[in-house]
Amino acid sequence: MQPVSESPAAFREARQPDTRLDLGRIFEARKQISRMFRDTPQFGCPSLGDLLGCELVIKLETANPIRCFKGRGTEVAMSRLARSADQRAAVCASAGNLGQALAYSGRERSIGVTVVAAKSANAAKIDRIRGLGGAVELVEGDIEEARKRAREIAASGNALLVEDSENLDTCEGAGTIGLELVEGFGRIDTILLALGGGALATGVGHVFKCLSPATEVVCIQPSGAPAMALSWRARSIVTTDRADTIADGVAGRFPIAAVLQDLLAVANHVPLVEEASIKAGMRLLLRHAGLVVEPSAALGVAAMLEDLSRYRGKRVVTVICGSNVLPEAFCRWTQDQSRSAIASSEGSR
Amino acid sequence: MQPVSESPAAFREARQPDTRLDLGRIFEARKQISRMFRDTPQFGCPSLGDLLGCELVIKLETANPIRCFKGRGTEVAMSRLARSADQRAAVCASAGNLGQALAYSGRERSIGVTVVAAKSANAAKIDRIRGLGGAVELVEGDIEEARKRAREIAASGNALLVEDSENLDTCEGAGTIGLELVEGFGRIDTILLALGGGALATGVGHVFKCLSPATEVVCIQPSGAPAMALSWRARSIVTTDRADTIADGVAGRFPIAAVLQDLLAVANHVPLVEEASIKAGMRLLLRHAGLVVEPSAALGVAAMLEDLSRYRGKRVVTVICGSNVLPEAFCRWTQDQSRSAIASSEGSR
Repeated sequence: MQPVSESPAAFREARQPDTRLDLGRIFEARKQISRMFRDTPQFGCPSLGDLLGCELVIKLETANPIRCFKGRGTEVAMSRLARSADQRAAVCASAGNLGQALAYSGRERSIGVTVVAAKSANAAKIDRIRGLGGAVELVEGDIEEARKRAREIAASGNALLVEDSENLDTCEGAGTIGLELVEGFGRIDTILLALGGGALATGVGHVFKCLSPATEVVCIQPSGAPAMALSWRARSIVTTDRADTIADGVAGRFPIAAVLQDLLAVANHVPLVEEASIKAGMRLLLRHAGLVVEPSAALGVAAMLEDLSRYRGKRVVTVICGSNVLPEAFCRWTQDQSRSAIASSEGSR
Repeated sequence: MQPVSESPAAFREARQPDTRLDLGRIFEARKQISRMFRDTPQFGCPSLGDLLGCELVIKLETANPIRCFKGRGTEVAMSRLARSADQRAAVCASAGNLGQALAYSGRERSIGVTVVAAKSANAAKIDRIRGLGGAVELVEGDIEEARKRAREIAASGNALLVEDSENLDTCEGAGTIGLELVEGFGRIDTILLALGGGALATGVGHVFKCLSPATEVVCIQPSGAPAMALSWRARSIVTTDRADTIADGVAGRFPIAAVLQDLLAVANHVPLVEEASIKAGMRLLLRHAGLVVEPSAALGVAAMLEDLSRYRGKRVVTVICGSNVLPEAFCRWTQDQSRSAIASSEGSR
């Protein structure tokens, strides 16, 4: 298929869902993103597809210096900031991946970057933020405390606050993943997206609803951190007291109202999955695709494991959104089959 | 940098080393190769580079349905066969990766493929050859016995014998990796290549000697399977009685004379590395790059670990040539630090 951007008819005719995002800006966003983060591999995995009873396509967002998709959004945000006259600094709260991405994109453009993280955040990610030249401030509490502190820093220091998923650049940058998939495959029945703050889900979801409206957009959260999924179901904001999941990349508690509205316009199905399924998903991606993935990147396979019949016979794309995981935790999680009914049945498949 | 193919001046002026390979044919080969295997990720890994004291670039050849680079060569060979009138079948001997690649490229073109493998070959790879529609014949002995049997099948069945590294398409297909690297980076000081039969080493080596002659071409074998390395040093064929290494993808014993001549024309340095270094390389690529690699894909990092001063301060590319490894073996090897002096010093770096 031709690049969509070279198909003005398809573009003009696209009916956009009612979100803050804009398809034209997503095409423009693509031009701001370094080759390092664009045109990522997308390939069939027949071995795992056969096991799951579908045609499984992997969209791999981890083969870059920051091992996750978030560079797409920060490239767009930092390109914009680099053109502005009055700000030369940026700040974000991050469990690690957004922080790495912002540090990378800022450094490439001589923009100072501060990342606020919870003291409990993944140490490997924090080390790499520092390695990329980002200043790190650690706070007590979880990601929500870090978000508060990042807002303070932005307000007092004339720095751009890059609030993941509220900042449109983070959503529209992520949306470029959708352009590549629509261009690469004639038909996609289902797209599986990790749901955290919502940048990936609303960005890619918007593109599919524009250019491939028959595709089912499935956005997945862990049962242990269900705030946005519960909000989607209630059609209004639901917050939670705790977030308890190994999928640190999607463990928010306070969904953003504007992002929920965007999600309501594009998501067809928002399942919650168990921790054991996430681990089983990681294990299967290791065995059948040779991939190390962080827990949030296994949410798609986890959702399939919990609802096999929904996906049977379909062409399903799962976005592998990150691989920032400590080896010790990775080996422990992928070897832990003790309490997983799904995992214990794997051997007999 | 512009694609080299669009720089006719650079192309015409390139002085080719005296090998069987041809730069013009390598440019042509690129057009025969499915997008699935071309334009693979190439990205810096500052975390591991800092540890090794160099600027490390990863060329990732595993993000495709067969999890290795060999599709580049089989795409070229099967494209050629598809255009020929008198043969519609192909056969190869393989420890697994070439077999998967040939099965994939044959199936795409309705060409029947038979793969001969040793009974001791990696079971995961054999399963996937069958999954891709290839017929598998298992023989006693090692890869050399499989090569004999493949020759018999080719002779009796009017099938094309795809002899890895003897068949020029396998070398020139692999050489397209070199084109992408030369186009992507203004300067590369050192390229690290796994050395088995020699297709990857002679293919990529030829391109560098043509288009980036100042780059040092380093081809690495395990000490436990040193036949081609010893042959390169002796400048004549040396065979070995045994091949004893976890790096099954490069474990040949009978180098091919024509390939040795090609290797002599392009390789600058051919080190042998210990098994403990290969495991340490796998461990470091897991920790710092989030990659699962098969042992042969860790030969480059292993060579760096054994000779750090050689690479210090340089821009070094290592080609991650495959990720076909059983999870159990992978976890065992990456956790086995007991007898590795290198590994035991890692923590203190």
